[in-house]
Amino acid sequence: MRIEFISTGDEVLSGQIVDTNAAWISQHFFHQGRQFTRRHTVADDLDSLIDIITETSHRADVVIMNGGLGPTSDDLSAEAAAKAMGVPLSLSQKWYDHLVTKYAKSNRTLSVSDEKQAWLPQGSEVVDNPVGTACGFSFQFNRARFYFTPGVPSEFKHMVTEQILPDIQQRFTPVTIPTLIKIKTFGISESVLNEQLCALNLPDTITLGFRVDFPTVEVKLLSTHVADLQKARLQVLAELGEFILFEGDGSFAQYLQHLMLEKGHTLSLAESCTGGLIASELIAVAGSSGYLDSSHVTYSNESKCRLVSVNKATIDKYGAVSIAVAAEMAQGAMRNAGVDFGIAVSGIAGPGGGSDDKPVGTVAFALASHTHTVSQLLFIPRRDRQGIRTVALYVALDMLRRELLGLDLAAEFGSLERRAYCDTVNS
Amino acid sequence: MRIEFISTGDEVLSGQIVDTNAAWISQHFFHQGRQFTRRHTVADDLDSLIDIITETSHRADVVIMNGGLGPTSDDLSAEAAAKAMGVPLSLSQKWYDHLVTKYAKSNRTLSVSDEKQAWLPQGSEVVDNPVGTACGFSFQFNRARFYFTPGVPSEFKHMVTEQILPDIQQRFTPVTIPTLIKIKTFGISESVLNEQLCALNLPDTITLGFRVDFPTVEVKLLSTHVADLQKARLQVLAELGEFILFEGDGSFAQYLQHLMLEKGHTLSLAESCTGGLIASELIAVAGSSGYLDSSHVTYSNESKCRLVSVNKATIDKYGAVSIAVAAEMAQGAMRNAGVDFGIAVSGIAGPGGGSDDKPVGTVAFALASHTHTVSQLLFIPRRDRQGIRTVALYVALDMLRRELLGLDLAAEFGSLERRAYCDTVNS
Repeated sequence: MRIEFISTGDEVLSGQIVDTNAAWISQHFFHQGRQFTRRHTVADDLDSLIDIITETSHRADVVIMNGGLGPTSDDLSAEAAAKAMGVPLSLSQKWYDHLVTKYAKSNRTLSVSDEKQAWLPQGSEVVDNPVGTACGFSFQFNRARFYFTPGVPSEFKHMVTEQILPDIQQRFTPVTIPTLIKIKTFGISESVLNEQLCALNLPDTITLGFRVDFPTVEVKLLSTHVADLQKARLQVLAELGEFILFEGDGSFAQYLQHLMLEKGHTLSLAESCTGGLIASELIAVAGSSGYLDSSHVTYSNESKCRLVSVNKATIDKYGAVSIAVAAEMAQGAMRNAGVDFGIAVSGIAGPGGGSDDKPVGTVAFALASHTHTVSQLLFIPRRDRQGIRTVALYVALDMLRRELLGLDLAAEFGSLERRAYCDTVNS
Repeated sequence: MRIEFISTGDEVLSGQIVDTNAAWISQHFFHQGRQFTRRHTVADDLDSLIDIITETSHRADVVIMNGGLGPTSDDLSAEAAAKAMGVPLSLSQKWYDHLVTKYAKSNRTLSVSDEKQAWLPQGSEVVDNPVGTACGFSFQFNRARFYFTPGVPSEFKHMVTEQILPDIQQRFTPVTIPTLIKIKTFGISESVLNEQLCALNLPDTITLGFRVDFPTVEVKLLSTHVADLQKARLQVLAELGEFILFEGDGSFAQYLQHLMLEKGHTLSLAESCTGGLIASELIAVAGSSGYLDSSHVTYSNESKCRLVSVNKATIDKYGAVSIAVAAEMAQGAMRNAGVDFGIAVSGIAGPGGGSDDKPVGTVAFALASHTHTVSQLLFIPRRDRQGIRTVALYVALDMLRRELLGLDLAAEFGSLERRAYCDTVNS
């Protein structure tokens, strides 16, 4: 079965807007067991639109067209479809009445350009848009079933999931919707993951996929065969072990919040090179105030002493980027805030500030609890400041995960070199 | 002139990878005065590739193909091109020698699959790849000049800017490369900006564009007519006035850092609902330690008292989200850190925590200096936590910009309602 997707609009074509609808629908169809054979992006002039509609009508079974349904003069999709088929536009009384009612509720009357949205190619069926004012529509033209959809992402997504996919399932040979299992990993590169998992010889019914969301990689297992899928899942879990951050949807911060609240623990941070990144990531999740007390963004040496009680002598002796200072920062954050855990990060994110001894990418981490303080100095082999900070964010949060799950905090990350490590008992 | 772009690859087509190359080249061409007429995404099977190469060869003047040039069996672009034209693949001695030399430098020899990258459709010209191992190539087929490019973004971008665009300029009627002026704004929506700027009746030689990078909007003026462009720029600057964050490339944080360092001022933050977001944005710029001392992420009420010396009585009387508490936070941050400016944010980012009196989206801001403290309570009419936090980030930094430039700190943002305002002299 051939399915094609057409994005319209000069702003998409000239790269002013990134076409998130195309990426979204491709992934959504993939997870529903269907795949596009082609995608196109065309300008919103009448000739280009007529050309692509005619072309795809001979080649595809299903064509989904996105954009150009609004009230303005740039919105030419309905007119192009009518011209391509050689039929007139005709008023959909159903959608016209719907618009009149909708506008009346906010004491408005329909302008001529608003009314334009109810004029569809003769013979089309309305595809409902419960959110916006532009209806979708659907028709058969040559080989292809066409679905015209609005460009506004929320309206588009709603129409695709609620109406178009079910309609395709009904009109064409239905496919069994596969089950998707997502496993989020950290510390193994995509290519190494690929090698490791291919070597497992997973059942043939399993489609294996990867989605990189730097610095994490999501492993995806997709199958319509439930027993095989569960078997494959267990194989993957056993193979990747402690490098799995969590399973399922959501963010790592959501997962950690769940663990922290469940255990009733509280946390304070001391951040230097990450500079608020860790706090911001945690606070992005509603309810984070249930366990996160505070963060101390101690960018200057003075602020490390003032806010988290680092000894100036320790900085003088070991330097701000050292396991000794990180340990004092974590302990200070924990004690001063009166919480269960303190986490600290101090590093050289570059591009300046590196030395032979401590090059750019050298980052010290520490986690303090009432029983012990673990500190480590890692080398993150990246040149970009943002990359180093983002890896540091994940290493720090991964230390908390490992602590909460009782795992070894000294993980052996393939690409990160450990240059120092210390585990001290706190009394 | 018709220019088309083809992306290949199942991972792009199934939405596993977002096609950043397509967005990048579209925008780059646009800024160079050229525009694509169509873009396509196709699967990397031989038939699909042959079809699209043949189709576009009759229709376009230039076709740029991206991906499928590597050493693996999935990399079928060269084979497809040869089959479409009915010519054999032939060894490019030039690229083969280049690969042998390149591999010899790291003591490696060429495998059969590595060698594959030197086999090009007969009659092709090599397009150099100074970075990677897959060369690009170029040939004429029917109406179109084809350029085949590697999928790795850095290699692709280098090839496009250094070789393909100059080659197009030479082979076809050259276009004058337009000049681009970028003006970053905050506080006016894209639709209002569009209305305001269209009403200016800018010269016809100017192309006006917008790029939304929430919550900022970049206004773009593009023209080959330098005098008109400067005239248009002045019109736009006069119209948008204090809603302009800065002109040119770079981030707002970079611009602020430049201002702060120039004036020799120092800063400390106290963040509640933004929770490290402001610090993280500022620290993302190298050299921020030159003016940013620290940030206090005071998420709990206790931490507000402990870290930035807020009076518990003030919280009890006015609530944590109030201009009184924000003012004390900003003053406390400034005084405790011993710096020139303190900035504070405390708000309700939701989805919980709102009330009739202070609904979700209510955010208190304050800026303290040695001479005065300005505080304001705004209502940000959004439902998503991230959206509220991001708008708050920009309001806070915009207050600093306004302070540094001697502008009124009480900006009239169209979409944000001001519910309280206070300017107190500090002694």
